[in-house]
Amino acid sequence: MLLSMDNILILAHEDPDGDAVGSACGLCRGLRSLGKTAYVSLEHMSKHMTFLTDGIVKDDYSPDYIVAVDTAERKMLGVAKTNIPKDCRVDLAIDHHYSNSMFAENTCLDENAAAAAEVVTYILRIMNAAFTKETAQAIYVGVSTDTGCFRYSNTKAKTLRIAADMADLGADIGEINKLQFETKTREYAKLEKMALSSMELFLNGKLAVIAVTNDMYVQSGVDDSETKPLSSLTRQIEGVLVGVTLREKKKGTFNISVRTNEGVDASEIAGFFSGGGHKNAAGGKFQGSLKDAVDAIVLHTEEILGKTGRI
Amino acid sequence: MLLSMDNILILAHEDPDGDAVGSACGLCRGLRSLGKTAYVSLEHMSKHMTFLTDGIVKDDYSPDYIVAVDTAERKMLGVAKTNIPKDCRVDLAIDHHYSNSMFAENTCLDENAAAAAEVVTYILRIMNAAFTKETAQAIYVGVSTDTGCFRYSNTKAKTLRIAADMADLGADIGEINKLQFETKTREYAKLEKMALSSMELFLNGKLAVIAVTNDMYVQSGVDDSETKPLSSLTRQIEGVLVGVTLREKKKGTFNISVRTNEGVDASEIAGFFSGGGHKNAAGGKFQGSLKDAVDAIVLHTEEILGKTGRI
Repeated sequence: MLLSMDNILILAHEDPDGDAVGSACGLCRGLRSLGKTAYVSLEHMSKHMTFLTDGIVKDDYSPDYIVAVDTAERKMLGVAKTNIPKDCRVDLAIDHHYSNSMFAENTCLDENAAAAAEVVTYILRIMNAAFTKETAQAIYVGVSTDTGCFRYSNTKAKTLRIAADMADLGADIGEINKLQFETKTREYAKLEKMALSSMELFLNGKLAVIAVTNDMYVQSGVDDSETKPLSSLTRQIEGVLVGVTLREKKKGTFNISVRTNEGVDASEIAGFFSGGGHKNAAGGKFQGSLKDAVDAIVLHTEEILGKTGRI
Repeated sequence: MLLSMDNILILAHEDPDGDAVGSACGLCRGLRSLGKTAYVSLEHMSKHMTFLTDGIVKDDYSPDYIVAVDTAERKMLGVAKTNIPKDCRVDLAIDHHYSNSMFAENTCLDENAAAAAEVVTYILRIMNAAFTKETAQAIYVGVSTDTGCFRYSNTKAKTLRIAADMADLGADIGEINKLQFETKTREYAKLEKMALSSMELFLNGKLAVIAVTNDMYVQSGVDDSETKPLSSLTRQIEGVLVGVTLREKKKGTFNISVRTNEGVDASEIAGFFSGGGHKNAAGGKFQGSLKDAVDAIVLHTEEILGKTGRI
């Protein structure tokens, strides 16, 4: 299907993470190696990832074929920079979210893939696309970031082999890891310290909540796009089943990141906050005061844990 | 050589890290699969790793053949629990430290291997040893811990492929990662917060020093064997070329962990403190006050950075 198409625009979800950017750029470069015209448009991307998009971004492009990568639902589609409406026809979705709502005309979904970039790799291989160094870099960023650099339980043998193949194809895995996982600005380190100090435990230590307020952003000088790594801090405390990080986007609006252990369904908890995602990692939104947000999180987490006899 | 030997004792360096334990246990189990009698003896091991040693430890064993894994120098050999003297004849060293002093009768050294467990894997394959689940778990712990779960620049395509092979052979990579990299006791989280607060920057932000004092251990209730992850915190700050973590073993005695970026030689700095190690990660010791330790670190780091025009 994709093989017969041309003039392709690739979109991903809003606030694109490494897998959204990596799978979009990897796909775009792979399609170009087949002689096609293809572009990406990405909304509000972290500055750590601009090295992947060099020469392939076109926000005002009018395509013949639209592909959405790593996007589970239509409302999550990041189109703000384009002249394409949010309810546009999406011709193909390439995804790995088991919660994918099948919003596209065609969907290529592998919910066992650790990253959308893994699915993109299989598709490019089937199409006999060439993997340049740039493609390999993009795919590597996708699989490494969505697995927390191969730490999370979604990492499989095949994920590690794709990473190895991308290294052989020229991906600078050491440099990429350093940039994505091992570099904190001094400002971020300051924010992390404040965020850690805000951590509170509830429900006998089974729920940990971190709140990053507007004040903390101002005090530390950190941009919100840098703060995704904070989400993983909560889950690391021994005994914690549910870790929630609140990030105040603007006064009274919070992004909610849910991380879970031992089979607790993160997407079910995020569902209470107009969100969704994976079993172990999901996100949502809340409008109101911080206190109300925390109260709601404790309430719904207690409900979910209670339902499965974990409390 | 090893193939014709029997009644083998495997030793590693003192305070064995994941690679020391993993390569020792992997080798031991592989040798046993060939019908040999083999044991390990390990000194002061982290409790996170006891699942690897089940049934293969014998501290009072009198072997016919002694193998040292992951040990660069004779003085680092962990023999305290055995009835073997520190200056014993070591028949075979299996290692990946480029600083290996060739103290053993025979040495199998691959300084391009990310972990000693990688070298052990090649040896077991050549010997046609069977890889049971237990062997795979041990090898996986070795390669994953010495690469910071595949983050550090020593990670190569072949390292990722060995990890993938071990996953296929039954290693519970998700569980192991959770245990080794994603689990902090509440006590450790408290200590980490204190350690981060102690971080000081020197030499225009090129050197970061963290000091974990005896008081912090007492206040947090953390055992020293849990604190190795602290060493990686310093290097993560943007602009830091040398990160040093001091851990007070007993009043007035400090373990020094050096981590470096951008080609600064960590083992050269550790050399000033009767230590050694790798290009990016090394360790040493200091006796004296904390202030004297920090002064010495600043002085020697300035010297090393100055020599290569980095200051």
